[in-house]
Amino acid sequence: MTSPAPEQVFSEWHETLLRVRYSETDKMGIVYYANYLIWFEIGRTEFCRARGFSYRDMEENEDAFLVVAESYCRYKAPAYYDDELLVRTHLTELRRRSLRFGYEVVRVSDGQIISEGETGHVVTDASGRVRSFPEGYAQRLLGPAILKSQSAGEVVPTEEGPE
Amino acid sequence: MTSPAPEQVFSEWHETLLRVRYSETDKMGIVYYANYLIWFEIGRTEFCRARGFSYRDMEENEDAFLVVAESYCRYKAPAYYDDELLVRTHLTELRRRSLRFGYEVVRVSDGQIISEGETGHVVTDASGRVRSFPEGYAQRLLGPAILKSQSAGEVVPTEEGPE
Amino acid sequence: MTSPAPEQVFSEWHETLLRVRYSETDKMGIVYYANYLIWFEIGRTEFCRARGFSYRDMEENEDAFLVVAESYCRYKAPAYYDDELLVRTHLTELRRRSLRFGYEVVRVSDGQIISEGETGHVVTDASGRVRSFPEGYAQRLLGPAILKSQSAGEVVPTEEGPE
Amino acid sequence: MTSPAPEQVFSEWHETLLRVRYSETDKMGIVYYANYLIWFEIGRTEFCRARGFSYRDMEENEDAFLVVAESYCRYKAPAYYDDELLVRTHLTELRRRSLRFGYEVVRVSDGQIISEGETGHVVTDASGRVRSFPEGYAQRLLGPAILKSQSAGEVVPTEEGPE
Repeated sequence: MTSPAPEQVFSEWHETLLRVRYSETDKMGIVYYANYLIWFEIGRTEFCRARGFSYRDMEENEDAFLVVAESYCRYKAPAYYDDELLVRTHLTELRRRSLRFGYEVVRVSDGQIISEGETGHVVTDASGRVRSFPEGYAQRLLGPAILKSQSAGEVVPTEEGPE
Repeated sequence: MTSPAPEQVFSEWHETLLRVRYSETDKMGIVYYANYLIWFEIGRTEFCRARGFSYRDMEENEDAFLVVAESYCRYKAPAYYDDELLVRTHLTELRRRSLRFGYEVVRVSDGQIISEGETGHVVTDASGRVRSFPEGYAQRLLGPAILKSQSAGEVVPTEEGPE
Repeated sequence: MTSPAPEQVFSEWHETLLRVRYSETDKMGIVYYANYLIWFEIGRTEFCRARGFSYRDMEENEDAFLVVAESYCRYKAPAYYDDELLVRTHLTELRRRSLRFGYEVVRVSDGQIISEGETGHVVTDASGRVRSFPEGYAQRLLGPAILKSQSAGEVVPTEEGPE
Repeated sequence: MTSPAPEQVFSEWHETLLRVRYSETDKMGIVYYANYLIWFEIGRTEFCRARGFSYRDMEENEDAFLVVAESYCRYKAPAYYDDELLVRTHLTELRRRSLRFGYEVVRVSDGQIISEGETGHVVTDASGRVRSFPEGYAQRLLGPAILKSQSAGEVVPTEEGPE
């Protein structure tokens, strides 16, 4: 009855804090650009935890890995050593065998948006073969609001269309 | 008279070899996805050297930095520890104050394309202010064929249009 | 009157928490050994903050850098992705132009000591020339207990002996 | 008859070249200190290859891993972006279930010694259990000169004493 609109589901961001490490800077005095992808990965890990499961357990107990198929990052302002940053992560797509995350990195001190990005993932087993999400995990990724609507008989993860 | 068509200019790839480091792998047993951006940076450094200048000198002597504004990578097949890889780099766009590079990473042993990517850069001074390329550097990036056509009076770097 | 014994000063550990990143693991499934030095650096940064100053400010406002001269690490047990770790840092030596830190990394879940280490540093200016600590900083590193004893006229940082 | 003295064996250095990556520098403008351990690992990989085997194959075909138990590095001079460096690696100890490597990093342009280091390793299987070197590998690490003396009946790897 009270199923949330998809916009609601995908607009819920999870936020995690981190502090820029000395090792993450380069000779320009700012954060080296590859490190943003590492922060996105921290965002994903904490997004899963906030949704009630540990990504480590999903790998180790369910033989399901979120292999990265694509990454995109737009660098909007430099980040500096010891800056406190908010990594904001949300789900932008969820299918039976793949998903996408969107990210924003914001500096806490001045609210400056540092970067925006996106990653696309395919679910595989340990040998790299594509598989679908283990039982219950897609639902957990969608969050508690959806769990309720699920019980009303709706199926939210979309079927993969022809590619 | 014999000015090369732009397609020719941009289709010239520079190739550099590297070997996957143990530190670049992760618990999945394959290369961690952020490392591809580090390899792209090596591709850029060696592309500049092949065009007759050192990127380090451009930073230190000309106060010109190629700050990354955007990165994109598509991961097509996993790379493994000790794999020998060819990083192929070419210029895909050159303007007065910006440029774009395209990349391909290919495994030497089996010719497998590991990834494809692109980065967009803005030219800045050490303080981060946007500037145009230092005298002569845009021409060098275009390569010797272009230098010849340049002397025939053609200007290849395009003007920045309205954004 | 109530000056603390040196053993007390040096036995005060600062503790900071971190979580193992996916990027920090390698194909053995455990944390790659170079990352421990990055964690030691986080320990130093937070040790300074706990002593009332920001290491970033010391670099930027006082032109004083703690350049690493030596590092040592003993790896006692593997650390795994998503482990929560306590990085314990203390001062083991403080001279006019140099200092040493000692470290312990402990897994929170089972109390296992993961590693022990030490780093030696020299104070330099931005150009790399050795200098002494900026006014007041050596005292701050020693902590509030020492500040009190300092006011009683004692000088705690030892003079550099002949090397 | 012509068995080499141990000093000879251990004094043979293997040399490999690398170039400092932009990602390896930090805001001080020099190479970040943890990266030296990554270079030592490259030195080990290439030392093995020069001794006639691939370390990757030893892991994958023989279930034998050289887990790091200790690392030490002394930083003697800064290294800069784009510096060409020689990583010199030699064996300093070889026992049935452990070994040690020594390293020197030298800048090619001026011969400056950048750092010196040492790592200690234990041989384990994939599950982390200590084991002895797989058949023939200790001999290969000692090099061809030793192989000859081996055939004369001498056993070079020392027995582990009580620890």
